[in-house]
Amino acid sequence: MKNFTHLSEHAPEELLALADAALALKKAPPRDRPLEGRSLAFCFMNPSLRTQTSCEAAAASLGAHPITLNLGSGGAWQMEHRDGAVMDGAAAEHLKEAVPVLSRYCAALGLRSFPSGASWDEDKAEPYLSAFRKYSTVPVINLESASGHPGQALADLMTIRERMNPKGRNFLLTWAPHRKALPMAVPNSAAEIAAAAGMNVTIARPEGYDLPPETMARVRALCAAGGSTLRVTDRVPEAYDGAHAVYAKSWGALARYGQPPPADPVFRARWMPTADKMRRAAEDALFLHCLPVRRGLEVADDVLDGPWSAVIDEAENRLHAAKAVLLALLAPGKLIVQK
Amino acid sequence: MKNFTHLSEHAPEELLALADAALALKKAPPRDRPLEGRSLAFCFMNPSLRTQTSCEAAAASLGAHPITLNLGSGGAWQMEHRDGAVMDGAAAEHLKEAVPVLSRYCAALGLRSFPSGASWDEDKAEPYLSAFRKYSTVPVINLESASGHPGQALADLMTIRERMNPKGRNFLLTWAPHRKALPMAVPNSAAEIAAAAGMNVTIARPEGYDLPPETMARVRALCAAGGSTLRVTDRVPEAYDGAHAVYAKSWGALARYGQPPPADPVFRARWMPTADKMRRAAEDALFLHCLPVRRGLEVADDVLDGPWSAVIDEAENRLHAAKAVLLALLAPGKLIVQK
Amino acid sequence: MKNFTHLSEHAPEELLALADAALALKKAPPRDRPLEGRSLAFCFMNPSLRTQTSCEAAAASLGAHPITLNLGSGGAWQMEHRDGAVMDGAAAEHLKEAVPVLSRYCAALGLRSFPSGASWDEDKAEPYLSAFRKYSTVPVINLESASGHPGQALADLMTIRERMNPKGRNFLLTWAPHRKALPMAVPNSAAEIAAAAGMNVTIARPEGYDLPPETMARVRALCAAGGSTLRVTDRVPEAYDGAHAVYAKSWGALARYGQPPPADPVFRARWMPTADKMRRAAEDALFLHCLPVRRGLEVADDVLDGPWSAVIDEAENRLHAAKAVLLALLAPGKLIVQK
Repeated sequence: MKNFTHLSEHAPEELLALADAALALKKAPPRDRPLEGRSLAFCFMNPSLRTQTSCEAAAASLGAHPITLNLGSGGAWQMEHRDGAVMDGAAAEHLKEAVPVLSRYCAALGLRSFPSGASWDEDKAEPYLSAFRKYSTVPVINLESASGHPGQALADLMTIRERMNPKGRNFLLTWAPHRKALPMAVPNSAAEIAAAAGMNVTIARPEGYDLPPETMARVRALCAAGGSTLRVTDRVPEAYDGAHAVYAKSWGALARYGQPPPADPVFRARWMPTADKMRRAAEDALFLHCLPVRRGLEVADDVLDGPWSAVIDEAENRLHAAKAVLLALLAPGKLIVQK
Repeated sequence: MKNFTHLSEHAPEELLALADAALALKKAPPRDRPLEGRSLAFCFMNPSLRTQTSCEAAAASLGAHPITLNLGSGGAWQMEHRDGAVMDGAAAEHLKEAVPVLSRYCAALGLRSFPSGASWDEDKAEPYLSAFRKYSTVPVINLESASGHPGQALADLMTIRERMNPKGRNFLLTWAPHRKALPMAVPNSAAEIAAAAGMNVTIARPEGYDLPPETMARVRALCAAGGSTLRVTDRVPEAYDGAHAVYAKSWGALARYGQPPPADPVFRARWMPTADKMRRAAEDALFLHCLPVRRGLEVADDVLDGPWSAVIDEAENRLHAAKAVLLALLAPGKLIVQK
Repeated sequence: MKNFTHLSEHAPEELLALADAALALKKAPPRDRPLEGRSLAFCFMNPSLRTQTSCEAAAASLGAHPITLNLGSGGAWQMEHRDGAVMDGAAAEHLKEAVPVLSRYCAALGLRSFPSGASWDEDKAEPYLSAFRKYSTVPVINLESASGHPGQALADLMTIRERMNPKGRNFLLTWAPHRKALPMAVPNSAAEIAAAAGMNVTIARPEGYDLPPETMARVRALCAAGGSTLRVTDRVPEAYDGAHAVYAKSWGALARYGQPPPADPVFRARWMPTADKMRRAAEDALFLHCLPVRRGLEVADDVLDGPWSAVIDEAENRLHAAKAVLLALLAPGKLIVQK
């Protein structure tokens, strides 16, 4: 494994094996500091709590030294990514220099870079992540880009696998209300990993809130290959019926890119997951959310505090997923792969 | 020991034993990395120099990986602490999620959370620290809250213990001038630890600058139990007479909560510790201050640069106190307790 | 070696031996964690990418724990350095306290403190670095001050030494365009280290952009002692003729201190290093820049992407130079010195 930036670059079998290796690491933490003496750079162009902390803790548990860098805010200066730019503006350094230099200091580079929210066509090119992949001489890890959040998806899959064999089970991804137009990285990756795991995928979203066509094409292909179904609907709460895993997330509309969703209370109430809606799901259904979550707006308290919620386990699994990804990239011999 | 957040939860004997264990760690640093492979989160809602650095160095000396997180400024987003809040405002995450998640990544959580300065009744409820205690599944360490700064108090006691047997000696806590209404955490904890150590406690403060009644009740009870005296006065410099330890600190008035103290030069001169005042104290009296200190405003240069000053030793003792607290919480078998 | 703050405090032989020791560390990284259990503080009053990351990675590779502190921005408060100041302003702590305290927590202190840009006479006194040297009880490392950047100079020398024996070869330091008046630390140190290594030094700069007289006196003395030549010129591109190493850097004018250089396109084009200019240099000439570099403004893309550029190697050498400096200060027995 060269990089871990996009789920689409990994076969479903590889993703399932990685999730299983992460679950093995959760049970038996590595003891011999396999990354001793190496430094890892985790670069954040946007704030983070779980990602920073889980990456730091994962690195430290493997004996590596994590270096958290805030690019473009406080820590260091803004970075240029455009070829041939005359750098007479705000950016003081080009990624053509910064990335190779970090590659010389560190054994792997992580990057979190959110979409700008101005244009999806520009955002989906993922200029910063692309530059990291192009200029790095060491493995690159996507800590959430415009199009995906693969480490989150790995943790999602682990959380489902801890409770059921996902193959043939029903996965509902439901849109949730919010005061901002949030990125589509998490719902993209959640739908992809569920399809890769052989689940029947239902996406419930308001009209105009479709996931990008690129995502839908991948999810459709994965479902077809795995023999599962894909359905898109705006019918809630009916979409909850029979779901084994309900994944709630807010995201912005492509057609009204960057603009917040309606604040209308009726609309919000219709789309917010509640205990009443969850009771339509299958017995022992689990509820997932990547966090942070706005209680009472995105998700009702009675879901987060109810028997379905697996959100804390899901967040913990980020730690073990990060360990598995680091070992797969830097010390694959240390990764226990289940046969 | 489950948490280390409030002195009042520990018997005087336990605090004295902890200070002695910290002094033993100062002489013989632990060599076998007792916290190897574990991460510790130190969360700051307010700035810090000594606390961050001493906690990081203490953790590293025990083999742990310290993660310093700035909550609500730069690093991560604002946190909600109110039950049932509809999170449609600035806070992007509830401590109901954030704290359990950090508990899954880290073996202990530290929190610095200053009072808001708007209302003592609200501040003394310590909403963030209370939420950490409520939602954490691992030990919580108070790195300074509205009501106390227990790690500082431990370092204060160590610094006195290095020079004298505190029992029956005279401890003067004197108010000092400042341009801001500072929190009462440090003077609260200083008075409590001195009383717990069996010292006669004098608090010299201007009219209206009494410590909170809750603090005074605890200090009074500790003095009564230990057979020492408690006196409150506004007579300076007389209050210095015969003191064995002088502890200077500025704090805001409860009645004029959040408002700065008078800037009148005569008032300031009256309350600022000076060499002249220190010469009234006992021979070999020591001078303490938690730092940072504003020279020439809070404390005269001739005190800080004079023979009495133990402020650098006191600050160093934060490091060893932090090691003792971490071991007491996470590896009590590694803590050498004096008999 | 007590501190590593100014090249002028080290004999040329010592600097050459240190660069060679750093090159040895590049080939054979230390394996036995010689600084195990110790913490190191790297204090930044100005932003950094290479310096922070290389210092952290160097410390971690030696088994130490690096603590990165942002003084005066976010992390901690502003610091006072003036003796006898009445601290009733923005600065909340005096370096008289902060530095000794950090000395108790950490085995060495690094400081980055840029010039203010208001007055060279004030800036060249380097008040913060001087205070660190005065008040620290552990070794101090200059991570770039007003007058110099000695760790960068060590990496520069290593990069030249990897490609040639510098003695008697031609070193060109050329001024480069910029939109700001940049500090003179890097060009000062580059000229000094080249002279210390026995190179013939040419400084090409526009009228009015002379390096400070103190620097020129040192460079002149070093060239005289080593039997090499020193020349200052404003004739570009002729200055490139026969150069074995071309070092480009922008800096501000002493006479127009703090004011940006001319933005006139003809002036900029005249001074920006280009492939055409580099072709006048000696065969196999190398191009150096400390980074960050503004492409298309300071240096043309065809130089940075051309065969001459050693800027990434030069940046990597910061890591190995930092390891050598840390060992020379803290564990000199671990430093392999070539005979």
